[in-house]
Amino acid sequence: MIEITTENLLFMIPVAVLIAVLFALYFHKKIMSMDKGTPEMQKISDAIETGAMAYLRRQYKTIGIISVIIAVLLALGGLFESTEDYLGYKVAIAFLIGAGFSILSGYIGMRVSVKANIRAANAARTSLGEAFKCSFRGGAISGIAVSALSLGGLFVVFYLYYMWIGDMTQTLHSVVGYAFGASFAALFAQLGGGIYTKAADVGADLVGKVEAGIPEDDPRNPAVIADLVGDNVGDCAGRGADIFESTAAEIIGSMVIGLAVMKAFGSVSYNWIFLPLVIIAFGLIFSLIGISVVRIKDEDADVSKELNKGYYLTIALVIVGLIISTYVLLEPLIEKWFYYVFCGIFGIALGLAIVFLTQYYTGDHKPVKSIAEASETGPATNIITGISVGLESTVMPVVCIVVAIIGTFLLGYFASPVAGQEVIFGLYGTAIGTIAMLGSSAFILAEDTFGPITDNAGGIVEMSNQPEEIRNRTDKLDSAGNTTKALTKGYAMGSAALAAFLLFAAYFEIIGEIQGKTIVEVMNVNLGNPLIFAGGLIGGVLVFFFASLAIRAVGTAAGEMIEEVRRQFREDPGIMEGTSDPDYAQCVDIATRGALRAMVAPALLPIVVPVAFGLIYRFVLPAELVHHTPEAVGGLIMVGTIVGILMANFLNNGGGAWDNAKKFIESGRHGGKNSPAHAAAVVGDTVGDPFKDTAGPSIHVLVKLLATICLVTAVLYVPI
Amino acid sequence: MIEITTENLLFMIPVAVLIAVLFALYFHKKIMSMDKGTPEMQKISDAIETGAMAYLRRQYKTIGIISVIIAVLLALGGLFESTEDYLGYKVAIAFLIGAGFSILSGYIGMRVSVKANIRAANAARTSLGEAFKCSFRGGAISGIAVSALSLGGLFVVFYLYYMWIGDMTQTLHSVVGYAFGASFAALFAQLGGGIYTKAADVGADLVGKVEAGIPEDDPRNPAVIADLVGDNVGDCAGRGADIFESTAAEIIGSMVIGLAVMKAFGSVSYNWIFLPLVIIAFGLIFSLIGISVVRIKDEDADVSKELNKGYYLTIALVIVGLIISTYVLLEPLIEKWFYYVFCGIFGIALGLAIVFLTQYYTGDHKPVKSIAEASETGPATNIITGISVGLESTVMPVVCIVVAIIGTFLLGYFASPVAGQEVIFGLYGTAIGTIAMLGSSAFILAEDTFGPITDNAGGIVEMSNQPEEIRNRTDKLDSAGNTTKALTKGYAMGSAALAAFLLFAAYFEIIGEIQGKTIVEVMNVNLGNPLIFAGGLIGGVLVFFFASLAIRAVGTAAGEMIEEVRRQFREDPGIMEGTSDPDYAQCVDIATRGALRAMVAPALLPIVVPVAFGLIYRFVLPAELVHHTPEAVGGLIMVGTIVGILMANFLNNGGGAWDNAKKFIESGRHGGKNSPAHAAAVVGDTVGDPFKDTAGPSIHVLVKLLATICLVTAVLYVPI
Repeated sequence: MIEITTENLLFMIPVAVLIAVLFALYFHKKIMSMDKGTPEMQKISDAIETGAMAYLRRQYKTIGIISVIIAVLLALGGLFESTEDYLGYKVAIAFLIGAGFSILSGYIGMRVSVKANIRAANAARTSLGEAFKCSFRGGAISGIAVSALSLGGLFVVFYLYYMWIGDMTQTLHSVVGYAFGASFAALFAQLGGGIYTKAADVGADLVGKVEAGIPEDDPRNPAVIADLVGDNVGDCAGRGADIFESTAAEIIGSMVIGLAVMKAFGSVSYNWIFLPLVIIAFGLIFSLIGISVVRIKDEDADVSKELNKGYYLTIALVIVGLIISTYVLLEPLIEKWFYYVFCGIFGIALGLAIVFLTQYYTGDHKPVKSIAEASETGPATNIITGISVGLESTVMPVVCIVVAIIGTFLLGYFASPVAGQEVIFGLYGTAIGTIAMLGSSAFILAEDTFGPITDNAGGIVEMSNQPEEIRNRTDKLDSAGNTTKALTKGYAMGSAALAAFLLFAAYFEIIGEIQGKTIVEVMNVNLGNPLIFAGGLIGGVLVFFFASLAIRAVGTAAGEMIEEVRRQFREDPGIMEGTSDPDYAQCVDIATRGALRAMVAPALLPIVVPVAFGLIYRFVLPAELVHHTPEAVGGLIMVGTIVGILMANFLNNGGGAWDNAKKFIESGRHGGKNSPAHAAAVVGDTVGDPFKDTAGPSIHVLVKLLATICLVTAVLYVPI
Repeated sequence: MIEITTENLLFMIPVAVLIAVLFALYFHKKIMSMDKGTPEMQKISDAIETGAMAYLRRQYKTIGIISVIIAVLLALGGLFESTEDYLGYKVAIAFLIGAGFSILSGYIGMRVSVKANIRAANAARTSLGEAFKCSFRGGAISGIAVSALSLGGLFVVFYLYYMWIGDMTQTLHSVVGYAFGASFAALFAQLGGGIYTKAADVGADLVGKVEAGIPEDDPRNPAVIADLVGDNVGDCAGRGADIFESTAAEIIGSMVIGLAVMKAFGSVSYNWIFLPLVIIAFGLIFSLIGISVVRIKDEDADVSKELNKGYYLTIALVIVGLIISTYVLLEPLIEKWFYYVFCGIFGIALGLAIVFLTQYYTGDHKPVKSIAEASETGPATNIITGISVGLESTVMPVVCIVVAIIGTFLLGYFASPVAGQEVIFGLYGTAIGTIAMLGSSAFILAEDTFGPITDNAGGIVEMSNQPEEIRNRTDKLDSAGNTTKALTKGYAMGSAALAAFLLFAAYFEIIGEIQGKTIVEVMNVNLGNPLIFAGGLIGGVLVFFFASLAIRAVGTAAGEMIEEVRRQFREDPGIMEGTSDPDYAQCVDIATRGALRAMVAPALLPIVVPVAFGLIYRFVLPAELVHHTPEAVGGLIMVGTIVGILMANFLNNGGGAWDNAKKFIESGRHGGKNSPAHAAAVVGDTVGDPFKDTAGPSIHVLVKLLATICLVTAVLYVPI
């Protein structure tokens, strides 16, 4: 029998990555061997693929150019004697690798999705179970690939940098660039994809469904291909990059805290640093098991319930992995190692709680019903009620986050073996909670990417005029996919909230390094000081401004789309009669240009603002006050994070609730489809689109980008 | 010649109050001597008055009951040895006086308004100048009365308590109860009035204007009287209480900082404590002059321009008063006394900047035009664009607030005559900036209350079927009134932002007192500590929850109103034909019940949450961490304030922009009235109603209430 030792556990990381990759390749082969359906289906699928690839090529070009500029700035930043240890070409290279992997993650997700959607559509002609198998496996490939890339990439970069530099502290500082690169590219991908998908969706719905009265995904609608492309570039490519950067940033954040713990502990044991990696490796393997057990046996199966079974199994296994890894790595070091097991369980419980709360606020419960009811008195009361629901839906998740932060911190605090260093051990508790929550991320992402695949499959079925029975199958899967999409957003926000805390701590660990102090000495962000309070205000308003730009971008691009669709209907009456084809390409082009044009300004905001703020303080404040600069930047990140958590929850849940209120009415309540209440609910749903699919999910990334940019540039804010 | 000495300046306070009261009485006599117009007009005016009085009676009863309960709790809180110096019956009495005066302020504003509106309506039959004179004087009575009551009441309470207790520190601690009482009652008044006015407005508009197609204020609309009553109980009574509590809380906050400065300065000179009172006294007198010069000479006069002239004069005089008072009180004490003059000028400049920015975002400029344009593609794009504009409109005001906070802090910091105590002197700089900004508050409130008076006068003119020429006169005044109302909200928010800072500092001064430490030693709110970060999250989510409840309350009450108006139209076709009278009383009753029912929960939120949070920390945290409690409560207030500033700006400006986008379309752009774009804009305007007149302005008060409740209960959070 193989003995479980630290070395063996570390060896597990590449092994886990390898197994996961093989697993994904196997699924890929299975999917590719499936039948592609009728030529008509293939034509639609090809149009989607072409549109998506054309968009991504242009998007990645833009991201590439900006990445290179930032990499050059990072490299140049290391030319000064005071900064050479913290910036320079090593960080720049790590940054580029992180950004590249982040993009690659999104790209894989999208590629798999466009291959799987047509096959799922065709499989739907056989049975629900077959259609499910194909789309869930497609989602699983994405989830596994992204997780494997995140863990494996990080492990390789970390290992190579350690070989290269030979010093753990310096290695971690450079690897921070990898997290920054990942967050940076993810924000662009999430934002650009989000603008694309919602501009197309809003445009298609408002003219098609509301004005022309044709059903969703009707081939007569000129914007329908753009809408389907949007699902791929937004939900697949965007979300893939998002989860990649989450995992990367959060592992690195907790490794930096591990470093701080190691120093506080007073002996060189890298176990503190490796534990997060090992927990994630276990999670990856166990997610494969969870994914394997999900099966739909008959036409009446409850899809969400089957998915939940897999999720619960994954969670149970992750807890086992957590216990094993904590025992092996920490038991030799401290007496109260099991406190950290409880920290992990806290994190997992938080994930579950947020999933349930999201279900409550966006499912068919009181909040959604209140919006549906308010729709009876028109769009204005629908909007008022929806905004109220969205704002309210922030309360319980935040309370859960508060309990999790305090709980994990206190557990870690009391596990501390070193008097006077309790705070660091407490922060490590929060780190383990976050990592345990992220353990099941491959499964979560599989569930998430499953959504847009079924959505696309449904679109292909509808557009190729398949019998209603087949459309019903894809609708059933789509409905389950909508739920899992909402859950993923809640999960992403919860983990971002905990992770933010790690990243603050990592930021101050680096500030402390630079000043030759411990993290506890420097991690003091005193909001009571007006200079720091000012930083907090800037952080908060940054989130509002970002949300404004993201939402506006959708409004503008959707407006152009509406004009174009109206123009086509007006100029060619044959489209509505079904005698001539609409010009799909024109709509795809409008969405592409709209997204590319509008994504740059908001995505640069969280990069430019904190750096500019920090440099102004650093060079403008009087000499006796300039030492407050790192602290003020810290205040900016922290308040930005709090406001970001609130805003993202508001936008995601508000949007989800509007969406489901519309569906609730469509199911026959309050007059059903085409009633005045339904018309009002469509307005709410449309307003919610940029909330839940553009601004909201981008803010998850923004929160982490704010922290990683400050981590990388920390040295600039410390007066010499 | 009278020599200007400290004693003479102090004596000026009661004299200023006396002059102001005489001035207000003179205006009141003038207004009452004017003619009340035709019996038809009187009938309408009487109906408004009856409805308003009936509502306020019930509202004040509710506030009274809750006040007494809280007063009893405050009194009981002083029964323990550890708390007797900080809570107890002295604080309870001050609380009741503050709450009583706050209510009285609102009541005066409302009484004057219902007397002035009918006379202004009648005067409009003569000339624009006469109508303006009547309504502006009505507004001025309110403005002057509220300011005089605020300054005079505070002076008397302070004086009597000082006589009673004999110790300055203890006196200030008790007087803090007065500020809490003022904020407490103001929140109820602002919230209840805001719900009332918007439920009636939304109900009247959605059925009357949109569904039935009858003009605003048409006597056939059953909700029209409720709408006019709403203007009085919301804009007059609510805003009066709001400005009263602002002035009271901010003066007390700066007096407490004055106490800290005095202690840091090391010699007993009460000048630091008296300076804010004296600046406000000067401001009151000078506002009278500003008010006196505003005159409308002919029918073509630009009303806003004339109002601005008076405002600029007031500001110029306030600066003179600032220089005199700072010179007399501080020149004998410190060399760099004039630094504080600059602090005051900073505050005044912030006020001006915010006024201009509000004008940009809510006037006929790019943001409003973009909303109007988006209305062409329907209500959904109108809402998306409006939300984007509202979110964006937070950016520049926050930047100005940041500059003002840093500027005043640094000026005060470098004025410090005592090494090591610079922070306290810096905070005093911010205090003087806030107070100087508030110097012109009597003028601002006069402008503000002028709005609803002209709005009501216009309603009376319309309902009594006067010739169009007369309606045009009141419309012109109403339009100027809308602008001044928006400006006041910006001003109120800016002053609340600065003031919050004073109140934090005052809170920590008291915490320091209790622990026998200086404010600088205790004022350390370290967001980097997870326990404090948790407090910040709770503070932020509190604001979101409050906004949710306030907005929902309007939605619910408006929904009932819509049903009722629809019912009346349906059951009695004679109403629309003009042959039978609608049942106005039923609508008044619905608004009244809706407002009273819905105001209690949100208004209690900022009282219950911080106290519960503090007590949980105090009694649940492990012994070695419990000393973080006061700090965590501080984090809750501070982040709550930041989020409050952002949210209030978003709601106020977003709402204002929607309103004016609708008016912009009504002026003939994008198809003009009754076009599809107009219908879309009406939806936006309706959504904006609870934003700008219920939730937004209530959050100004909430921010200060959060601080004053914690100030009063500070002793509960300090472990013994």
